[in-house]
Amino acid sequence: MQSTKNLVIGIDIGGTNTVFGLVNKDGKILSRGTISTTTTSEVNEYIDLLYNAVQPEIMKMGGPEMFCGIGIGAPNGNFYKGTIEYAPNLKWQKGIIPFASLMEQKFGIPSYLTNDANAAAIGEMKYGAAKNMKDFIMITLGTGVGSGIVANGSLIYGHDGFAGEMGHMTVLPGGRKHWSTGAFGPLEAYASATGVRLTAIEFLASGKFKGSLLEKHPNEEINSKLIFEYAEKGDVLCLEVFRVTGEILGLALANAVMFSSPEAIFLFGGLCDAGDMLMKPVKESMEKNLIPVFQNKVHLIFSELKQSDAAILGASALAW
Amino acid sequence: MQSTKNLVIGIDIGGTNTVFGLVNKDGKILSRGTISTTTTSEVNEYIDLLYNAVQPEIMKMGGPEMFCGIGIGAPNGNFYKGTIEYAPNLKWQKGIIPFASLMEQKFGIPSYLTNDANAAAIGEMKYGAAKNMKDFIMITLGTGVGSGIVANGSLIYGHDGFAGEMGHMTVLPGGRKHWSTGAFGPLEAYASATGVRLTAIEFLASGKFKGSLLEKHPNEEINSKLIFEYAEKGDVLCLEVFRVTGEILGLALANAVMFSSPEAIFLFGGLCDAGDMLMKPVKESMEKNLIPVFQNKVHLIFSELKQSDAAILGASALAW
Repeated sequence: MQSTKNLVIGIDIGGTNTVFGLVNKDGKILSRGTISTTTTSEVNEYIDLLYNAVQPEIMKMGGPEMFCGIGIGAPNGNFYKGTIEYAPNLKWQKGIIPFASLMEQKFGIPSYLTNDANAAAIGEMKYGAAKNMKDFIMITLGTGVGSGIVANGSLIYGHDGFAGEMGHMTVLPGGRKHWSTGAFGPLEAYASATGVRLTAIEFLASGKFKGSLLEKHPNEEINSKLIFEYAEKGDVLCLEVFRVTGEILGLALANAVMFSSPEAIFLFGGLCDAGDMLMKPVKESMEKNLIPVFQNKVHLIFSELKQSDAAILGASALAW
Repeated sequence: MQSTKNLVIGIDIGGTNTVFGLVNKDGKILSRGTISTTTTSEVNEYIDLLYNAVQPEIMKMGGPEMFCGIGIGAPNGNFYKGTIEYAPNLKWQKGIIPFASLMEQKFGIPSYLTNDANAAAIGEMKYGAAKNMKDFIMITLGTGVGSGIVANGSLIYGHDGFAGEMGHMTVLPGGRKHWSTGAFGPLEAYASATGVRLTAIEFLASGKFKGSLLEKHPNEEINSKLIFEYAEKGDVLCLEVFRVTGEILGLALANAVMFSSPEAIFLFGGLCDAGDMLMKPVKESMEKNLIPVFQNKVHLIFSELKQSDAAILGASALAW
């Protein structure tokens, strides 16, 4: 039997799915679940759906009084204010959403919020390979691209709580237009699941890769999973998609290294399933774009934590 | 009469000039001087020249025993190790120079060293407009481009002491080749005095700006001061040099803002003499390249501290 207020809830809001977990003091996830983030474009309806999924689990553990808090990781989440602000990858109304207080009202449990990538960084620091590191960067490669930056042992939130939006840093000026921000050439336009899909569609349209397995699919069916599947089968177009993606990501990471000089960069999220197909060009490109003083020093590694766990655990750590 | 060990020496090593000052506990510069950084390519000879300039001032104050330390700001300076490593903008032998210990041997005073831009950031934090700021960036626009990044109230040194090399971040991939690193399109290739000169020479060669006042000068005579002087007279080519430089710098600053979300960015160094000719396009370009959540929030300002003072005072602050 758990004693009172010995549990927390960790929630990770991704552009596609929302995962949640009920977590004890040892960082053990006692119960977990998933809902779609995109079912509704109304934030209150979304919270109702989330409540319907989480509340039965809360009751199984003895009710809300057993929980000392809810920690939430969300794109464009603001740690200082508990808000989600102008999130390009969420379908809800734009502007400033007081998400933490909406959650608190609905669940009756104190709620805290940060950027989803910050939450993953906290997870890696508390439970993963970053345990003894004072300077590292977590890059999340999912529907979008996020980042959590740790320097001098602390997360960098910036003066307003919004630091770590590496996905929106311009990497190729005048390059691909971002589907949501309208910016030209940001990292997210290339190194996200969405970006990888667009690169494949561009390659198909270019006519330079005849005989690709993707040719039999209409564009709507093409996604990063399919591209990965075909790349594993040796499809030249799909392999080239990951090579080019890695090259662009490596350039962005080199810039980040020359800025904050981390000991390690962790890659995390769905695109990491591509393994060496992605990691090899990323590493080569990063080293090539560094001045000598930074070369062959930074550990570039996939996160050790299970895909959903880091985000849930990281978010949950906010709530203690 | 000063009591024992109540003074420090601050030294700022620039790509062109080295400035030094003898500083008391109140941050008052009691004596100052300048030597050329480029007279010799032998680091020990350089230290001899520096000694010949500084030692007489030390003796006037009562000798080395009155000084508790020497603080040095240098390009590619390493705070943790007291070394200058692979500095592209210094003519001395490449590789790792144990500069702080060489200074200590010569002067008989404990010596400490950091990146010149970090020293300027410390100066701005101790004596300038960043006094109450926890998150800001100092950009030095001199022979090269340096940066000092403060987050959560502390300088970011990174895991190895080399953080803050924004001048080497790629801003235009495949762009102008850096004269010393060989990298293509780093910020320093454009937004430094050297870069501004190269842009003007490119514009002249392009033949697009007939009748520029620069046309009567051979390339060797063209430098950022001359370009500034003619821009003030309304020379279209020279004005365009500052506009383009500002546009590129603004893009790089937008990327920095989305990374660490500072409250303010301070511009510092020789290029700042261009005033609004530079500031206006920098500001416009920075705002244009930010996603909405960061827009109209960051104070972009020239450093309040006198050109040489911030670097001397910042470096000297290392020595207390």
